[in-house]
Amino acid sequence: MPLLLNLSAAPALDRLMAETDTRGLEWSLQGHAAQSAWPTIAGIGSLAGAGESEISFAVSKKYLQALLTSQACAVIVTPEIDQACLEAEPGWFDRVRVLCNNPYLLYARLTQWFERARQPVVDASAPAIHATAVVAPTAELGEGVRIGPGCVVEEGAKIGARTVLEAACLIGRDVDIGEDSLLHPRVTLYARVQIGARAILHSGVVLGADGFGFAPDHHQARGGWSKIAQFGRVVLGDDVEVGANTTIDRGALEDTVIGNDVKIDNQIMIGHNCRIGDHTAIAACVGIAGSTTIGQRCTLGGAAMFSGHLTVGDDVHISGGTAVTSDILKPGRYTGVFPYAEHADWQRNAAVLQQLAQIRRRVRSLEQGASSES
Amino acid sequence: MPLLLNLSAAPALDRLMAETDTRGLEWSLQGHAAQSAWPTIAGIGSLAGAGESEISFAVSKKYLQALLTSQACAVIVTPEIDQACLEAEPGWFDRVRVLCNNPYLLYARLTQWFERARQPVVDASAPAIHATAVVAPTAELGEGVRIGPGCVVEEGAKIGARTVLEAACLIGRDVDIGEDSLLHPRVTLYARVQIGARAILHSGVVLGADGFGFAPDHHQARGGWSKIAQFGRVVLGDDVEVGANTTIDRGALEDTVIGNDVKIDNQIMIGHNCRIGDHTAIAACVGIAGSTTIGQRCTLGGAAMFSGHLTVGDDVHISGGTAVTSDILKPGRYTGVFPYAEHADWQRNAAVLQQLAQIRRRVRSLEQGASSES
Amino acid sequence: MPLLLNLSAAPALDRLMAETDTRGLEWSLQGHAAQSAWPTIAGIGSLAGAGESEISFAVSKKYLQALLTSQACAVIVTPEIDQACLEAEPGWFDRVRVLCNNPYLLYARLTQWFERARQPVVDASAPAIHATAVVAPTAELGEGVRIGPGCVVEEGAKIGARTVLEAACLIGRDVDIGEDSLLHPRVTLYARVQIGARAILHSGVVLGADGFGFAPDHHQARGGWSKIAQFGRVVLGDDVEVGANTTIDRGALEDTVIGNDVKIDNQIMIGHNCRIGDHTAIAACVGIAGSTTIGQRCTLGGAAMFSGHLTVGDDVHISGGTAVTSDILKPGRYTGVFPYAEHADWQRNAAVLQQLAQIRRRVRSLEQGASSES
Repeated sequence: MPLLLNLSAAPALDRLMAETDTRGLEWSLQGHAAQSAWPTIAGIGSLAGAGESEISFAVSKKYLQALLTSQACAVIVTPEIDQACLEAEPGWFDRVRVLCNNPYLLYARLTQWFERARQPVVDASAPAIHATAVVAPTAELGEGVRIGPGCVVEEGAKIGARTVLEAACLIGRDVDIGEDSLLHPRVTLYARVQIGARAILHSGVVLGADGFGFAPDHHQARGGWSKIAQFGRVVLGDDVEVGANTTIDRGALEDTVIGNDVKIDNQIMIGHNCRIGDHTAIAACVGIAGSTTIGQRCTLGGAAMFSGHLTVGDDVHISGGTAVTSDILKPGRYTGVFPYAEHADWQRNAAVLQQLAQIRRRVRSLEQGASSES
Repeated sequence: MPLLLNLSAAPALDRLMAETDTRGLEWSLQGHAAQSAWPTIAGIGSLAGAGESEISFAVSKKYLQALLTSQACAVIVTPEIDQACLEAEPGWFDRVRVLCNNPYLLYARLTQWFERARQPVVDASAPAIHATAVVAPTAELGEGVRIGPGCVVEEGAKIGARTVLEAACLIGRDVDIGEDSLLHPRVTLYARVQIGARAILHSGVVLGADGFGFAPDHHQARGGWSKIAQFGRVVLGDDVEVGANTTIDRGALEDTVIGNDVKIDNQIMIGHNCRIGDHTAIAACVGIAGSTTIGQRCTLGGAAMFSGHLTVGDDVHISGGTAVTSDILKPGRYTGVFPYAEHADWQRNAAVLQQLAQIRRRVRSLEQGASSES
Repeated sequence: MPLLLNLSAAPALDRLMAETDTRGLEWSLQGHAAQSAWPTIAGIGSLAGAGESEISFAVSKKYLQALLTSQACAVIVTPEIDQACLEAEPGWFDRVRVLCNNPYLLYARLTQWFERARQPVVDASAPAIHATAVVAPTAELGEGVRIGPGCVVEEGAKIGARTVLEAACLIGRDVDIGEDSLLHPRVTLYARVQIGARAILHSGVVLGADGFGFAPDHHQARGGWSKIAQFGRVVLGDDVEVGANTTIDRGALEDTVIGNDVKIDNQIMIGHNCRIGDHTAIAACVGIAGSTTIGQRCTLGGAAMFSGHLTVGDDVHISGGTAVTSDILKPGRYTGVFPYAEHADWQRNAAVLQQLAQIRRRVRSLEQGASSES
């Protein structure tokens, strides 16, 4: 792992911790450096990968051996893990470490510090709107907005303060984007899409394309279709992240609504009129058909599929690859995946699958024979 | 639901019906307004969501209660539903309503009227080709073609009359697009792709990328591959809609062919040499491997998968999530989805799945024992 | 199939073979033309589709009838197939044919010859960088690099000799692309992505978007998430092809690594920290969750899914639609697909699926009864 910062720009551990968001965390610095200078932290690494200018972390005692041998100049551990290290290796007492009740969350917060520190300094004298961008005169741009090359911002769009549009973003009529959002290159927002504050949208995202709606129309041809124009919007809450090449369609008559702090991975498809509750996280390749409602704090595993017009309640966890075809109102974990096997074994068992109802009948008939005998 | 039009621009119901395409529909206006002015219709809403300037509709008697309490200023119902309303609520006789033999199709046709009415008026004095577009001198543009910012139209491309390219569409060499088509922002058509009339292509669509073809080539390395260049085209019929981020690959030697009036949702992958019959509708996230032929008037449910080199006949309906691995020649509905369950139940049952062939043997053996006893 | 070249530009068969890469192949020309001029070859077609200026090929004796009736002016066959044709039809002796130990590979190599021959001649006097491209002054462009309209190349990017960027490609800071690569229109590479030589990247590809990483963070809200910034790169070896709209995410702390000669189809998602071994081929719509390692020379069938943190060894072949949820260390073919059936049959059998554990118990109990009787 390359260092994230040059050593000359890297902070000492105590300054790093002071500048990191540690709200909600309990932590303290330990190790011999308490009596001298704390080490300089130029990056973050895994226990095995971290070099001697990098900090690392462990979330469980099962990494004890890796902890004891890590080259990292500092490690984040829970007091309990720390105690186990001390018992295993008395020299551990002199190790520079951050005791923290939640090392994984502290790791996340540290990555955010480094991410900010790594941002190229914006040249304040450079124009905020690239010369090749096309911005409609009626668009409203907040303070500090930056618009990259090749962007198009159409009539009536509003872009909140400090929001950044990287290259080639296309912002339709009357779109409304909140403050402090980041649109990576090549995001497309159709007309009237609404985005909250602090959004992160990745390349290839398309929000607001037409929902898939057609009425059977045999007037012109047997099997013909008549398009149902789609009038709803896509509305995203605050703190939403949407991964690369994900698509969310506009509603037919109502809006498609994504709650606050919803995290959506790559290549996901969310159909028209869907509603996703706050804090729900959706892994890659999930498809959610139209008019389905997903509750709050759900996790949807990769490539899970949802039929349309369903209701999935709060705190439901769906395993990857599961097809959800009916309502789920009770919290819990749900799964439906065909177990894989060596091909010949699968073939043998799959063949019987087609006879299951028949086998059940045969078992029942055997049972009746057995019970009539006894 | 916001109104679709300002009240000042909204039509009275009788004018709306006169201007709407009602070919193939039987309809009549009913209600007390027949003696005075028909109400002004500023939009369309669901029965529950429609406000008092909006029209709504019902397709079945199960919405009777919602019909009777809807705030909509007019409703579309069948004569049969109307009769049920009259029986349930005598005051219904004074309700403004459109009796129609197919309310859902009339709803679709009305959305089309509103969609046209909502289009921003094109400034006829504005240049039809945006200053930032790059159009090759040998490209042929029909009358009324409009080309948005950042578009690239390469040598030899032909674009039919009144077709609109929104921002950042990339049109390769010798592409041929029919009349009255709409390319939403950021559609990519590789060289020689052919599109019929009245197409709607959504953002992120890629038509004509190379099919996935490689010959094993162990000359340079064990397991090596030699690319098979792809020479076919992608050919779309008339009235085709293609959803956001869908990809259709060019054929290897022959073309990949999509029939007339085929409706293709988002994030679909259609491999090289496939042929899709007229009027077939394909829901999101479907994958169709190379050289598979799908018949006319089929519906393919979301995330269904098709192996390559298959033939699926006309009027076949595949449930979402189904893997089709062999030909289907008989019309009908086909399904293959592992039913989901609470995780622990799934685990228990999935484990047995691996023993199905063995269980069948055991049942057979029990049956033989039983029959030898009797 | 249209001819690939005008007849005037088409080569005679002997010249075509001399100019085609035949390394590792054994071949000879046969047929009456040996005594006169070899025919002119203007294209390649299937046995049924080839016209009289096109060459075709057969890979197995099961195409014997098609071979004997093909209009192609020349055919590629193995000596063994040739012998079968001679026996079936004595006149075959005068047929122009290429005997080759590997007709399919020779076909692939011929397509490459035609692909090169079909390339429009680059106007050497035209500027290599389109006037509408935005190239940072610190970007390094190798000799013969061509950059299309609307491209953006950011600070510090390096583009190897003869690499072509078609329209609207977006190349982030410090990206490094090898020599002789082809980026089709509208490829997005985030900062620091590294691409080897001879890559082919199709439209809509996004390499280097953030991996999907969040730490649970209940400080602000129950169910809240804290983003883990993603610091790794995406690194592609040489000779990699990536299909349209495929996404590969950058690693969290380490890199996401794609080996040499890996072939990746459309609409594939590869999560952060994955590693894919050399020569592995991945069919469309596959999803690979984060931190999974796939070995060398694997083939992953369309829409197969892989859980995260798995290890799949070398020479493993996964059937399309299979969900891989645990390590696979032994070479071989693996499958896990629910067999489809007519819907009513599926329903009947799927219902029993939920009772499998119970049925096994009942069989066991019957067996115990039977054994206690005997």
